[in-house]
Amino acid sequence: MRVIYNEQMADLAQLLGEMAGLAGSAMDRATQSLLQADLALAEQVITESDRIAELIQDAEERAFALLALQAPVAGDLRQVVSAIQIVADVNRMGALALHVAKVARRRHPNHALPEAVNGYFAEMGRIAVNMGAGAKEVLETRDPERAAQLNEDDEAMDDLHRHLFTLLMDRDWKYGVAAAVDVTLLGRYYERFADHAVEIGRRVIFLVTGVLPPDPDAEG
Amino acid sequence: MRVIYNEQMADLAQLLGEMAGLAGSAMDRATQSLLQADLALAEQVITESDRIAELIQDAEERAFALLALQAPVAGDLRQVVSAIQIVADVNRMGALALHVAKVARRRHPNHALPEAVNGYFAEMGRIAVNMGAGAKEVLETRDPERAAQLNEDDEAMDDLHRHLFTLLMDRDWKYGVAAAVDVTLLGRYYERFADHAVEIGRRVIFLVTGVLPPDPDAEG
Repeated sequence: MRVIYNEQMADLAQLLGEMAGLAGSAMDRATQSLLQADLALAEQVITESDRIAELIQDAEERAFALLALQAPVAGDLRQVVSAIQIVADVNRMGALALHVAKVARRRHPNHALPEAVNGYFAEMGRIAVNMGAGAKEVLETRDPERAAQLNEDDEAMDDLHRHLFTLLMDRDWKYGVAAAVDVTLLGRYYERFADHAVEIGRRVIFLVTGVLPPDPDAEG
Repeated sequence: MRVIYNEQMADLAQLLGEMAGLAGSAMDRATQSLLQADLALAEQVITESDRIAELIQDAEERAFALLALQAPVAGDLRQVVSAIQIVADVNRMGALALHVAKVARRRHPNHALPEAVNGYFAEMGRIAVNMGAGAKEVLETRDPERAAQLNEDDEAMDDLHRHLFTLLMDRDWKYGVAAAVDVTLLGRYYERFADHAVEIGRRVIFLVTGVLPPDPDAEG
């Protein structure tokens, strides 16, 4: 049983990693579609989101089968339960990339973003992609140091997000309310994408060390 | 074993219901604090969010203990796995109520909302509270018809949300960009709160009928 469990759990962890990587690459292309008002790229992200949805269902079924057929205990059981929770985070990361692509599509042939904030979103996109790749690596290697690095990326994301809001709230904002609404929602999508990657890192650290790190987004 | 399982699962379902009810009541007070710029009420929601966080941890531990000690199979196992997923939804509902209260606190002594949108938020708040109560009832009774009603509430929420955006995007919006940013984020919080309640309903329907209803927010 134990050999089968180990194999199946390794497969599941790899599948979760693959999905996190896909979510990161979806966010990459969604960001490009946003910055370049590239409709074809936005459509591609939207079409391929079905693929992530399929993998989500596959992962959920595999986790359930592992519980049902291998009846893992102790640390093994903890791994499967974490996998079930991680599936939900990866699912949201994919959904958030999809949201970004949809804003790009909705505004096409216009650019959704005023040029003044392009730099922010290029950088937020870069960090998001990095975090998708980081989450993938963490799921595959279970390296707690790499997981902790996700927090640093998240802080960089939060900084950018705060700056973006300062810009929006400034009386000199001259791009109108409609653009401000888009920028607000888009900023939120990137910030939440980062939060879910951090959450994956926290769960992996918990698995490896037995201690759940404090939630960086727990706000008093 | 089976008797113990049944008892413990019933306790867990009741705890989840209680948490959904608490999230709904937090959203109720958060909405009042927002509409009336009531700092004390906002602070209360913020303080009490610790209580929901404790219950979340308690529920996660109970679900894990159920798996570890009772080793449920088939439908029983499915219930525990669903409970683990539902905890995450309830957790987010609580977090979203907290976000609303924090906007109210941040803008105090000013009102965060221009008076023109008060009616929208009063109504979105009413629907959210209703959905929190609905999710609680569904978790306690496992009534699929009541679960399906959550979809109707969600549609009403989405309608309001769309109208709100039309208002924001209108050239006649005269409350400035800063208010538009707050209204955008707040609208998103209510919409997401409703989504999570629907998700709880879907999971309960799946448990009872074996068929997962289509995700009303799955967007093509």
